[in-house]
Amino acid sequence: MATVPLVRYEDAPRDVKEVFDDIKRTRDVEDVNNFWKALANQPETLKRTWELVREVMRPGALDEMTKEMIYAAVSIANNCEYCIHSHTAAAFNRGMTESQYQELLAVVSTAHLTNALANGFKVPVDERFKRG
Amino acid sequence: MATVPLVRYEDAPRDVKEVFDDIKRTRDVEDVNNFWKALANQPETLKRTWELVREVMRPGALDEMTKEMIYAAVSIANNCEYCIHSHTAAAFNRGMTESQYQELLAVVSTAHLTNALANGFKVPVDERFKRG
Amino acid sequence: MATVPLVRYEDAPRDVKEVFDDIKRTRDVEDVNNFWKALANQPETLKRTWELVREVMRPGALDEMTKEMIYAAVSIANNCEYCIHSHTAAAFNRGMTESQYQELLAVVSTAHLTNALANGFKVPVDERFKRG
Amino acid sequence: MATVPLVRYEDAPRDVKEVFDDIKRTRDVEDVNNFWKALANQPETLKRTWELVREVMRPGALDEMTKEMIYAAVSIANNCEYCIHSHTAAAFNRGMTESQYQELLAVVSTAHLTNALANGFKVPVDERFKRG
Amino acid sequence: MATVPLVRYEDAPRDVKEVFDDIKRTRDVEDVNNFWKALANQPETLKRTWELVREVMRPGALDEMTKEMIYAAVSIANNCEYCIHSHTAAAFNRGMTESQYQELLAVVSTAHLTNALANGFKVPVDERFKRG
Amino acid sequence: MATVPLVRYEDAPRDVKEVFDDIKRTRDVEDVNNFWKALANQPETLKRTWELVREVMRPGALDEMTKEMIYAAVSIANNCEYCIHSHTAAAFNRGMTESQYQELLAVVSTAHLTNALANGFKVPVDERFKRG
Repeated sequence: MATVPLVRYEDAPRDVKEVFDDIKRTRDVEDVNNFWKALANQPETLKRTWELVREVMRPGALDEMTKEMIYAAVSIANNCEYCIHSHTAAAFNRGMTESQYQELLAVVSTAHLTNALANGFKVPVDERFKRG
Repeated sequence: MATVPLVRYEDAPRDVKEVFDDIKRTRDVEDVNNFWKALANQPETLKRTWELVREVMRPGALDEMTKEMIYAAVSIANNCEYCIHSHTAAAFNRGMTESQYQELLAVVSTAHLTNALANGFKVPVDERFKRG
Repeated sequence: MATVPLVRYEDAPRDVKEVFDDIKRTRDVEDVNNFWKALANQPETLKRTWELVREVMRPGALDEMTKEMIYAAVSIANNCEYCIHSHTAAAFNRGMTESQYQELLAVVSTAHLTNALANGFKVPVDERFKRG
Repeated sequence: MATVPLVRYEDAPRDVKEVFDDIKRTRDVEDVNNFWKALANQPETLKRTWELVREVMRPGALDEMTKEMIYAAVSIANNCEYCIHSHTAAAFNRGMTESQYQELLAVVSTAHLTNALANGFKVPVDERFKRG
Repeated sequence: MATVPLVRYEDAPRDVKEVFDDIKRTRDVEDVNNFWKALANQPETLKRTWELVREVMRPGALDEMTKEMIYAAVSIANNCEYCIHSHTAAAFNRGMTESQYQELLAVVSTAHLTNALANGFKVPVDERFKRG
Repeated sequence: MATVPLVRYEDAPRDVKEVFDDIKRTRDVEDVNNFWKALANQPETLKRTWELVREVMRPGALDEMTKEMIYAAVSIANNCEYCIHSHTAAAFNRGMTESQYQELLAVVSTAHLTNALANGFKVPVDERFKRG
């Protein structure tokens, strides 16, 4: 259960409808996901968040599939159930294969193991890693 | 400061030296990082962890640079200082450009923002994401 | 599903009933929340936790609504589903408006984004922030 | 140590200088914090992040001090060292008293304790909390 | 709902069946848990993870019940719902009493409270703790 | 650097001195750790936190060493640098051997790996784990 009702397109005020239209056009989908329907209760947050996501997730130096895999990896680390589902699905939609999904999960889970070891031992950072 | 002393190659017992040699050979480096020198206090953990990392991080369906970027993304989400430094450096060593680094951080930080929103509103998962 | 059964008032031993009575009196409610019914399996933990929460959450230098918003913010960051629901509801009960809820979520989610950037770049702390 | 060099005003390209000028004007400070100097390595991220922070942190339904306290609370939960320091300092600059700081930390730490209990017992959410 | 289907023994390929057989033999159970049925979609991950868990969780310097309690403690801190349930159940199966469970939760939740205070104040580490 | 100054015994007000005396007596140490010196800026928080820790950490159904190991495990998962150092040291002081430390870290890090897999696949909880 959500802390807010989901706003449907037909019930949305004009400024929300405009964002929904842009999402549908940009992603070529018939309806927006529940995430956007929840955010629609706070129209400024909806608009600001969509513009951020649209800008950041467009293909650039990294392709869309790689971006979605990174997004899914972060969502697993933060244990965001909604985001794990939506970005795993998005990565598959952008071409992720089952083999790539297997390696994604293998890297993510191995990172958790070594993160815990490095934090547990409080290993000092090597001088050679220094860039800044 | 670490919770354990760092074990240098010349002071290491034989089973540790063998792992250190394999790390140096596999990665073509002159010395192992502090992470492995810390783990060397617990030789079984050192061996087991290195074999896991070696197997998971070798190029497969995903290339090494992509794997290191995913590793860095998880390390940022878990706020593992050592791992952020080592895997950011590793991604650059495997060809990550400044533009790709910019997009990596943009995706990681945007994911944190939407993770918080989806968790804060407890948005219900869309049926269309269902795979399992 | 919980890892423990929920203890109802009528089935509770005397020491649990006394805590339940104090919760109902302090909060002017007819029944205690599931959180307290779960803790009632461990009567000492129930008593200790209730006394801590009662003391910390009473109005002082900060009013009750502000305290509940801070509580909700932490619960979102820790992704505690139960606590997100209970403290969002509590903040509304203590007068939080929809506009304030919008700004709460905006601040919380923006903090997650900049937390990730500051951790990702490992930005050194400015001398001017020094107090201790 | 940072993963990127800090960019000083006098060495910054024009687009970075414009953001730095806006930060200094908006906050009435002589120099920007290290956070912005680190982000300046990625000018688009700098601009986007500053515009987000500027918009979200301006006084509205919540005053600036309350927003900074919420920001600090999230930063503690995420254990972002830089952000803990900068937003604790910012809350003091916007009028937080020592008593309020004491209560902020008391609420934040108590929330962590009950978050762990609610997660540990996996307490089911009460129907009465339902809004969405 | 899972991101992958659960693989049943009778539908599993030979290499998965071998791992399932080893799990059932080692743990003396009639069927494997859902965790392993999910991992079975990625046979290499299944095999690698099972071998890691089998090796790490066998009794050694620490007994099995203590290991399961530590596992449950970490799972609560990471808020892994599946793991909280499975390792709490496993600790009970290996002899944890209700009193021990009460103390486990008390230690875990108190640790969260003091973790937040130490992180919030950024308390400097005492020299006397130094080992490494 | 801390967000508050450390309060020394000789500069402390009477109510803080009383808590410090109780800590020193209970733990049979000559001086209190920095954690308590930081908390002393907020005398009520100092008193409340010490009484909680004293009560929870006294030997009961679990011995002191096991409690310190669980405390360290949670502190690693939460990446609380101060607490990792202080509770690792405390576990050694209460008799933890190097072999037990090795197994502690092995369990903690393996738990992180499987937590990530269970969260990443969103594995449904087995009915057999049900207790509540």
